Amino acid sequence: MRTAVLGAGSWGTAFAKILADAGGDVALWARRPAIAEAIRSTGYNPDYLPECRLPERIAATADPFEALEKAEIVVLAVPSQTLRRNLAEWAGHIHPDATLVSLMKGIELGTTKRMSEVIVETAGVAADRVAVVSGPNLAPEIALSQPAATVVACTDIARATLVQKAITTPYFRPYTNDDVVGCELGGAVKNVIALAYGIATAMGLGDNTKASLITRGLAETTRLGVALDADPLTFAGLAGLGDLVGTCMSPLSRNRTFGEHLGRGLSLEQAQAATRYTAEGVKSCLAIRDLARSLRVEMPITEQVERVCHEGVAPKIALAALMSRETKPE
Amino acid sequence: MRTAVLGAGSWGTAFAKILADAGGDVALWARRPAIAEAIRSTGYNPDYLPECRLPERIAATADPFEALEKAEIVVLAVPSQTLRRNLAEWAGHIHPDATLVSLMKGIELGTTKRMSEVIVETAGVAADRVAVVSGPNLAPEIALSQPAATVVACTDIARATLVQKAITTPYFRPYTNDDVVGCELGGAVKNVIALAYGIATAMGLGDNTKASLITRGLAETTRLGVALDADPLTFAGLAGLGDLVGTCMSPLSRNRTFGEHLGRGLSLEQAQAATRYTAEGVKSCLAIRDLARSLRVEMPITEQVERVCHEGVAPKIALAALMSRETKPE
Repeated sequence: MRTAVLGAGSWGTAFAKILADAGGDVALWARRPAIAEAIRSTGYNPDYLPECRLPERIAATADPFEALEKAEIVVLAVPSQTLRRNLAEWAGHIHPDATLVSLMKGIELGTTKRMSEVIVETAGVAADRVAVVSGPNLAPEIALSQPAATVVACTDIARATLVQKAITTPYFRPYTNDDVVGCELGGAVKNVIALAYGIATAMGLGDNTKASLITRGLAETTRLGVALDADPLTFAGLAGLGDLVGTCMSPLSRNRTFGEHLGRGLSLEQAQAATRYTAEGVKSCLAIRDLARSLRVEMPITEQVERVCHEGVAPKIALAALMSRETKPE
Repeated sequence: MRTAVLGAGSWGTAFAKILADAGGDVALWARRPAIAEAIRSTGYNPDYLPECRLPERIAATADPFEALEKAEIVVLAVPSQTLRRNLAEWAGHIHPDATLVSLMKGIELGTTKRMSEVIVETAGVAADRVAVVSGPNLAPEIALSQPAATVVACTDIARATLVQKAITTPYFRPYTNDDVVGCELGGAVKNVIALAYGIATAMGLGDNTKASLITRGLAETTRLGVALDADPLTFAGLAGLGDLVGTCMSPLSRNRTFGEHLGRGLSLEQAQAATRYTAEGVKSCLAIRDLARSLRVEMPITEQVERVCHEGVAPKIALAALMSRETKPE
């Protein structure tokens, strides 16, 4: 089967490897021609996944239209806040029956829309043509073919199964699900909770506190999901709990690492300078907070992360605000 | 309020500290007179919680009847498999309206009974007089007054609230709940999953795999709970997810540490010799497996942990058996 992956960041590149290892012919689009050229000539993505020799079935290109040609599965793996702009340009070149797969874990600023909603609007496709892949899938581990599991969510279960087959390998184990909303929210909010986890880690808090943070973080994610008609059980699965725990535990996680810088007292600008990136959760926490407020859902951890990131509130003050909430039934 | 803690292991001792810090007068029973004497004379429990200077409101004794005298809250913190024998001896000395609190996280071998069931049977008390405290509460962190949260479960909400008040301190935050069964199962099964986590850690598996293990482990715990009429939401809370994550993440966890020895290829006897203890999950996995089979609940991780612990199966073989299960909807 011919597939296209649009975006050659670490997760896009690792996902192309999975598709190729599962037997697909993969076109991998990189925005920067130098990256496409490096993959073509060396078999490595030097900037985003240097630890992995990529399979030969991956053809890298900097031309999105070439990548999209005849692709039955189109995987979108660009930065969340650029999706709308990119996809508007690409939409006319997507095969009329292609399944679109989102790997992105953000919420659009301003509109507070999920990535699948942006895809439906911008590509003008029916919602049941859009699938979401989400789970505990740290790209550097996938690069090494270490065992991992994930969820493929699509309201059209036949398409979910199509994607499942296209990414099943001895080291990668996809489960199907029809809860697109739940999977997307799980992936997006976990970045915010991972920031909080990083902050707590840098502040020297113990494992009891950090385990409670994960638990309460998943609880507020679930509350938001239920308000948006997601299935609460999704959050107990790989795309909820699994992704959250994987991201919080791993020193490879960008959001956790960024949070650690904030927890050491660095400002947002200083943390950006130190890491040379902006963690996804830094942007998403604003959109998620706005979404939660519009639905009257309480998300105390997200509220405090937003204050630390964007209002210059000291982590100690934010923690005290969390701890002083009233004791009540769980 | 006068309270008694029966059992001066690390969690019993830390719990006595919480009760005292919350303003209670605490009698702490230690089986070995030397421990009681050490606590009385030095203020430290040298064997089980050496890092903590105990509050003066704790009176240590090796006489269980002295400890029980006038106690309105009786906290049971003995090894799970000795509870029935101990309590049979103590029952006649428990105040007729005392609330009995279980800190124990095991399932009785042979009978497959939960600790609260053993208490009801052996002490001859009504079930609504028994509360369970469970959550991410690693004793060495509590000893240092690091922030932690927990669940107090009792079918009589007035008693749950009584216990909640008796253990609320600036660093310890209890939530009430009426799901005794769910809290007990969460605490018991998490020891088994933590063994699996330790085995996986020693085998060098990555965070993706370990996050999946936690997720699937909680899923099988929840299945068992639902079969026993527990509330599935309990497992998403502090006594389920929270306790599981705290135990798996922490190098202080005895079950995880014990699992790491098994994962390195040590036999059960060698691991016992190396750690000088038997992890609770080693015994519980047998009882939990039997309980699950009798209810026809699938618990694949528990099954494999039992095989590694008690049937000499190599961790690699057990892992392969887990990974080769059929792909299906989550």
